Amino acid sequence: MFNKVLVANRGEIALRIIRACRELGVASVAVYSEADVDSMHVQLADEAVCIGPGPSQDSYLKPDRIIAAAEITGADAIHPGYGFLSENARFVEICESCNIKFIGPSAEVIRRMGDKNTARATAVEFGVPITPGSDGILESAEHGLKLAKDMGFPVMIKATAGGGGRGMRPCFDEKDFVSLYDAASKEAIACFGNGDCYLEKLVMKPHHIEMQIIGDTHGNFIQLGERDCSMQRRNQKIIEECPSPLISDKMRVEMAEASVNLIKSIGYENAGTIEYLVDEKAENFYFMEMNTRIQVEHPVTEEVMGCELIKEQIRVAAGEPLSSHVLQTNPRGHSIECRINAEDPYNNFCPSPGKITLWYTPGGKGVRLDTHVYSGYSVPPYYDSMIAKLIVTGATREIAISRMKRALSEFKIEGIKTTIPFQQEIIDHPDFKNGDYGIEWVADYMKSEGLQP
Amino acid sequence: MFNKVLVANRGEIALRIIRACRELGVASVAVYSEADVDSMHVQLADEAVCIGPGPSQDSYLKPDRIIAAAEITGADAIHPGYGFLSENARFVEICESCNIKFIGPSAEVIRRMGDKNTARATAVEFGVPITPGSDGILESAEHGLKLAKDMGFPVMIKATAGGGGRGMRPCFDEKDFVSLYDAASKEAIACFGNGDCYLEKLVMKPHHIEMQIIGDTHGNFIQLGERDCSMQRRNQKIIEECPSPLISDKMRVEMAEASVNLIKSIGYENAGTIEYLVDEKAENFYFMEMNTRIQVEHPVTEEVMGCELIKEQIRVAAGEPLSSHVLQTNPRGHSIECRINAEDPYNNFCPSPGKITLWYTPGGKGVRLDTHVYSGYSVPPYYDSMIAKLIVTGATREIAISRMKRALSEFKIEGIKTTIPFQQEIIDHPDFKNGDYGIEWVADYMKSEGLQP
Repeated sequence: MFNKVLVANRGEIALRIIRACRELGVASVAVYSEADVDSMHVQLADEAVCIGPGPSQDSYLKPDRIIAAAEITGADAIHPGYGFLSENARFVEICESCNIKFIGPSAEVIRRMGDKNTARATAVEFGVPITPGSDGILESAEHGLKLAKDMGFPVMIKATAGGGGRGMRPCFDEKDFVSLYDAASKEAIACFGNGDCYLEKLVMKPHHIEMQIIGDTHGNFIQLGERDCSMQRRNQKIIEECPSPLISDKMRVEMAEASVNLIKSIGYENAGTIEYLVDEKAENFYFMEMNTRIQVEHPVTEEVMGCELIKEQIRVAAGEPLSSHVLQTNPRGHSIECRINAEDPYNNFCPSPGKITLWYTPGGKGVRLDTHVYSGYSVPPYYDSMIAKLIVTGATREIAISRMKRALSEFKIEGIKTTIPFQQEIIDHPDFKNGDYGIEWVADYMKSEGLQP
Repeated sequence: MFNKVLVANRGEIALRIIRACRELGVASVAVYSEADVDSMHVQLADEAVCIGPGPSQDSYLKPDRIIAAAEITGADAIHPGYGFLSENARFVEICESCNIKFIGPSAEVIRRMGDKNTARATAVEFGVPITPGSDGILESAEHGLKLAKDMGFPVMIKATAGGGGRGMRPCFDEKDFVSLYDAASKEAIACFGNGDCYLEKLVMKPHHIEMQIIGDTHGNFIQLGERDCSMQRRNQKIIEECPSPLISDKMRVEMAEASVNLIKSIGYENAGTIEYLVDEKAENFYFMEMNTRIQVEHPVTEEVMGCELIKEQIRVAAGEPLSSHVLQTNPRGHSIECRINAEDPYNNFCPSPGKITLWYTPGGKGVRLDTHVYSGYSVPPYYDSMIAKLIVTGATREIAISRMKRALSEFKIEGIKTTIPFQQEIIDHPDFKNGDYGIEWVADYMKSEGLQP
């Protein structure tokens, strides 16, 4: 096992990792920007190193400063959390060259699965279903238009380097194709420095279902069930749940088999998530992409499966096998997560940084709160606006929903705006209670309420 | 189901019951003393009624005021929590006469199991093992001395009305018997108005193991596993866990069978706990007493069994059957509870009421906190000093212990003294890690540390 793990992240996930280290008896090092000096992850780590000014590109995205912090403190491993450098293959190589273990898959696997078009080809190679689409990168707008006509509209134009909805354009009519292709490509150049695009048949009214997987260096490659993350606004997940209320047991088994087969075939070490699109009637699933890191929504899997993904990531990276209670899980109950963001849901989800003057958190049976925030904390303006993850679990989905409703009603936050009122609306909606929602649900609902989606 | 439940209690258990009501869609009424106006249970209930001054005998122990509050607010049921009126058969009869459902067993069952000597006779009647002892109440000190000589010393002199350690005297030598009998009887008259005593063979270095049971009106009488509550100081539990690290699967099965047989035989409705003494080497178990109410430590059972005892109590009282996930439980993992008290463990556990100036609570995976307290809250001097229950759960006992250690280290409380540092010592002790502790462990440990036990 490692002696000391540096946590190359901030916010709730940094605290989550520090807690896992403490329970494993491993020392932890927090790194923090000048804007994060008062964050709870800094207080609760065994050591903390300031790595620069507030903006991410001056601190959390600086590999050299993070490596320096690891070397100064004598950390023998780095946990990247999610976002920032977590899927940066170059950073993994830098860690390796400094004899610091990166807690995640190899640089080679990150490259293979991080590039969307290569990942798609890998999925095809190992028999994972994908949506019909181009065999590779489009040579030009004209090339794409020809293929799109052959497969039939609507289609999705996707940048191979894309992410978070950037470099993506749905196209419903051939007359719009060329201009949409140009827009996607230009956006991808601006955001990712790579304008290469490919084509997929557009799945109408899809659901987003993802499989949690994990592999170790002892030949264990397993899945830990699916999560339903269809409740999204502009590709940002708002509420996630485990298990999915949508898919059949048959699809669950097929998706699990496809996922395990894929990670076994590529020798995937550590935790990851394979994201699938499921069509409106839940008859087919299609590989969408793979995230080669821990996800924000991992706690709903932990609660239902009775395991701890962060600890397993650390174990696997240290060369240990997965825990026996993970290899033989005993799933129980239903879990739902709300991402509480410092945003004003009734003003176009405008970020709402500032000082939290009152912070009373829900508790009791079946309530888990992962947060770095406390009363008197100031939400800095530089980062993702998530301030807490509220996870509730119950014996049934109905109990979990009633518990989420209760917990949200107890959550008292003053000084900033949060997404809680909007999440209360969703939790109370008959469509949510019936499990009857896809990726487009939030946009449709907001339009129906006279809000800008 | 009920329309409105009045919660005849305060503190964390009042909040626990209010939360259960909210999740069931049942309105809740808090009652509170003038000293509890700022308690969270008052804030989070749907309605709240002040029932008198701070001291319990002027408010929470006043049946007429509680009944009046129920009638004014139109509550159709009363949940008594634990302590106060929860085992008061007369109060149950008053509720019945006012057409208000008491959430608990009948007055008759409370009388039968509440009187210790009658409960012992009932246990014998239905084949539950008891310690050797007198067949009934002792006629006199001389009568007791004769019996004690026959069964051999040491013996325990116990007041039939006793509780919380009052009216109990261990006797190791015949020359002390008469004076100890007189002391026990006099204490019982002072505390309970009844000096009747009986005799039991004293089990040396015992363990306290208790079985959670629950019965409904549809013929279901079940057990929900045991709790180990041997970590006590002066008969007050400090740390509880589920399952017990001590007993064998064979004893677990036998204890479960004896417990279910007993409650089936007496037609026990609602939740209760049967407390057993287990001898030093865990070879025999003996009926000690039955508590005809919910216990403080019920959450460790909830976490391992994946059920919710308070909701089941309400369901059962409303005439519904136990939930299917309770009738067919799927036990998982290990759970430990620390009772956090406002007391100074290094000054004879002296109560430490006053204003809490800082209150930062632990969170994250596997951490549950049941508390009515918040930053700025003043702990009143009138009541039990418990301010929070910290419950942690993990896949194994080892994980649960590491988690409790982590969670206690995160718990920051300023303004008052708490038992946390003492609990940290226990959790860190090899004897606790090995599960090697009985009822006398705390006293022995305190003596070895030069503290007054």
